[in-house]
Amino acid sequence: MNGHSYDGKPEVQPVLIGGRWQPASLAGAFQAYNPASGERLLEVYPISSWEDLEKALSESSKIKLELARTSPEKIASFLRIYAELLEKNEEAITQMAHLETALPLKSRLKSTEFPRMLNQLRQAAAAVEERSWCQATIDTRLNIRAKYGPLGGAVVIFSPNNFPLAFNAVAGSDLASAVATGNPVICKAHPGHPGTTRLMAECLLQALEQSGMPASTVQMLYHFGNEDGFRLVSHPAVAAVAFTGSRAAGLRLKEVAERAGKLFYGELSSVNPVFFLPGILREKAAELALEHFSSCSLGCGQFCTKPGLVIFINDEPGRRFLWKLQQIFNQPLSGYLLSPAVLDNLKKAVEKLKAAGAVLLAGGHQIDAPGFQFQTTLFAITGEQFLKDPATFQQEAFGTLEVAVVVDDVEQMVRVAVSLEGNLTASIYYNPSDEDEEIYRRLEPAVRLKVGRLLNNKMPTGVAVTPAMHHGGPYPATGHPGFTSVGFPAAFLRFAARYCYDNLPEEHLPEELRSKNPNGRMWRLVDGTWTRSDI
Amino acid sequence: MNGHSYDGKPEVQPVLIGGRWQPASLAGAFQAYNPASGERLLEVYPISSWEDLEKALSESSKIKLELARTSPEKIASFLRIYAELLEKNEEAITQMAHLETALPLKSRLKSTEFPRMLNQLRQAAAAVEERSWCQATIDTRLNIRAKYGPLGGAVVIFSPNNFPLAFNAVAGSDLASAVATGNPVICKAHPGHPGTTRLMAECLLQALEQSGMPASTVQMLYHFGNEDGFRLVSHPAVAAVAFTGSRAAGLRLKEVAERAGKLFYGELSSVNPVFFLPGILREKAAELALEHFSSCSLGCGQFCTKPGLVIFINDEPGRRFLWKLQQIFNQPLSGYLLSPAVLDNLKKAVEKLKAAGAVLLAGGHQIDAPGFQFQTTLFAITGEQFLKDPATFQQEAFGTLEVAVVVDDVEQMVRVAVSLEGNLTASIYYNPSDEDEEIYRRLEPAVRLKVGRLLNNKMPTGVAVTPAMHHGGPYPATGHPGFTSVGFPAAFLRFAARYCYDNLPEEHLPEELRSKNPNGRMWRLVDGTWTRSDI
Repeated sequence: MNGHSYDGKPEVQPVLIGGRWQPASLAGAFQAYNPASGERLLEVYPISSWEDLEKALSESSKIKLELARTSPEKIASFLRIYAELLEKNEEAITQMAHLETALPLKSRLKSTEFPRMLNQLRQAAAAVEERSWCQATIDTRLNIRAKYGPLGGAVVIFSPNNFPLAFNAVAGSDLASAVATGNPVICKAHPGHPGTTRLMAECLLQALEQSGMPASTVQMLYHFGNEDGFRLVSHPAVAAVAFTGSRAAGLRLKEVAERAGKLFYGELSSVNPVFFLPGILREKAAELALEHFSSCSLGCGQFCTKPGLVIFINDEPGRRFLWKLQQIFNQPLSGYLLSPAVLDNLKKAVEKLKAAGAVLLAGGHQIDAPGFQFQTTLFAITGEQFLKDPATFQQEAFGTLEVAVVVDDVEQMVRVAVSLEGNLTASIYYNPSDEDEEIYRRLEPAVRLKVGRLLNNKMPTGVAVTPAMHHGGPYPATGHPGFTSVGFPAAFLRFAARYCYDNLPEEHLPEELRSKNPNGRMWRLVDGTWTRSDI
Repeated sequence: MNGHSYDGKPEVQPVLIGGRWQPASLAGAFQAYNPASGERLLEVYPISSWEDLEKALSESSKIKLELARTSPEKIASFLRIYAELLEKNEEAITQMAHLETALPLKSRLKSTEFPRMLNQLRQAAAAVEERSWCQATIDTRLNIRAKYGPLGGAVVIFSPNNFPLAFNAVAGSDLASAVATGNPVICKAHPGHPGTTRLMAECLLQALEQSGMPASTVQMLYHFGNEDGFRLVSHPAVAAVAFTGSRAAGLRLKEVAERAGKLFYGELSSVNPVFFLPGILREKAAELALEHFSSCSLGCGQFCTKPGLVIFINDEPGRRFLWKLQQIFNQPLSGYLLSPAVLDNLKKAVEKLKAAGAVLLAGGHQIDAPGFQFQTTLFAITGEQFLKDPATFQQEAFGTLEVAVVVDDVEQMVRVAVSLEGNLTASIYYNPSDEDEEIYRRLEPAVRLKVGRLLNNKMPTGVAVTPAMHHGGPYPATGHPGFTSVGFPAAFLRFAARYCYDNLPEEHLPEELRSKNPNGRMWRLVDGTWTRSDI
């Protein structure tokens, strides 16, 4: 498809509803950008009117009972076939993602994000098949048994701009989790990479067909208006919403969804503070400045886990570290922001920080060149400034933007930690053979309560896909600090209800709760003991 | 204390803030009722002004770091000492509860609810000490480890009117769960049984002191205005709210709390439908009518799990069942409603059902006698009536009030199931040696998605305290179908955040995530295997 029909008028791409690509009911249309040129791409995508959303909701409702009873083996098979089809189309998908996001093709899309996406789908498949995720809990004496199961309504996924592959609504961790738990899914593509999403959704539809899953299991719309979005997330056919994006948009959706009794999982914002204790800065300030900058500038500073706040003491090693940071941030670095909106938001953040009295040590301006480019930017403030107005100095902005908080002493550092909002991560760099150990013990308890993932001597930007990962955190990082969006099977639980069975005969129980372990591999908590044995 | 000072003016009871009983900052005062006489009791209790709430919040904030690091052994010791002190004061507490609620002293308060309360506190203590609740998940290869930990803010508990002991804010499952997970707690007593709460809170304070817990771990206020309640649940020092009570009040609190980013766990309403399939009615309609009535009238129909909706087919066994139900409901039964508000709500429910066209088969009127008494009341409607206006016919009302939905056939029965709102429970009564089995298989999938606990041939009113219990359900039964308020350790998870540790040295990890199993009994998921061994 090239976006133009034979008579020269641009065709609008169809949407995926009810298991087939069909013409959208149009409220409007849009084109994505090429962030490297700043120009619009040719392909035209639909902004759906409510009619499309209603059709998708109706299709979801029709299949929810069937999906709830679909076997784990079939769901796993779908996820594996999907991964395989994506893999076959790697070249086209990554080229399109590169075009639409300007993220580096080799170092990022091909070597990191694409394999991560496949790995996620395959890990989810394995977890579905193992079945342990449902936490079968059996009281044999009372014959009361519980496990997690589907929500009984659709999951709506809003995907972010910054990971066109691994967090794409149609192929990311949210999708895998919502399907794994037997829920119908309605995906809203991100308008920054509709072409990438289209190519992936084509594989998805094939995978649904080949695996014999209900064809409406996953549906996809490119875009719709805010009001329709609110109507969607509060609709009776919807059970949960997964949103990754801006805090302002997320909070509006959260309010509407929750008021209607829906579960809302939002990844909303995080500045991922990094604390450098004096001992480790004394040892290697220059090396750490470089390490920090590399993490901060990864993906042009457009990671949810970008370290945007760095805190250290105003002593000789601290000043040396800041000096080094300043030098590095002042070196030109190429890279593109994802959209005019990201650029605009970054400009506003810079103006806000300036207005609040932060000192600009590097960058601060748009780069006068094609595409969406901005200088790598470093601000400095004192601990006192931070403590006077903590909200202003911990606002997330995509882009290589960093605020250095130079504190007077350990006591002030701890107070800064206490003033933090909820974050996805925090890192503490320390030197184990130094007085740092004592500072660590004062600082850690305050930091711990504010974040989902705590790191030692490590930057936060790598988010490994392991059962022990937690990608989440206290509000406003997310809406519920007990749930993670990365790492299986924990990520599944966002889209699961607890099902209890009281006094049921063996033949009415789901397989996971019967005497025989359904596959011999599933872990079950039987009378207080985790076991893979039959009862 | 007798409620009157020496000069004859009534004394207002003090509140428990900051580890001591102190005079309340008064916005007003109230007295509880004796539901058996309908008269006010003498003791006067405070309605706190915002000043008290603010003090309590400030005390909670002061100790949250200390509490987060308090050992499981100390928390368990507190829960056990507390149970012991309550046990020593059984006579006084149950007498007071009887006076304030008119619930039967022997058959209910002493023999059922009091032991249940002690059992819950002791089960929670054992679960805290075992530590398995925190679901330690360890990836040894990547050195990424996760577990659940405290929320980092206060938990506010609003307790219901119907269980003065086992669900009392100061001693129920919510209290045990919130303390177990290391959170400070602010309790709002129910104004229906302030004296009972006071006696229990006196034991609680002693238990805090004897176990060496921070004295402000649990604080208690008797009452405050709605606006102050909204301010409380949206305060920065609060992390979560547990509410058990009326749907209208709960939804208002939910909206305010969630808008401020707080977790809200509400047990809001449930009519607990019971389906009787034709085969089992053919076998024993009379016996089942009695069994059903006993469950419906338990505690004078004031259970969250009261079966308020009964569904069966309009065939000969069904008509015999209804006839029998009608006879039983028309026999006089003594029992008291908890308050004028419950009585009032019941009257309104009866009027609403009448207005909607339900046929009154029994009762329907207040009993002209001392105290809050109402006739046992039975309505009947057709399946068609239900399907036309499902919302009206599934509104919870405390009291022995039942709506019988007489459906045409199995198909209509399934449609009724599909039209149900979220409920805590549903029961299906069936005869295994009959055509019921086939009907069961058509009905069950629809019912399953609407409820937390599904029962077979069993009434829903018994809620066993076991790890496999689920006392929760889809909205509007509760706000999140993944969490239970009864059954440890699952109930703990409502008040827990997920903590991840990435690249931490052994000595910085919490005990639960170190190489050595901290007590040799804790279950941990190490590289995909649940084990009690060291790593």
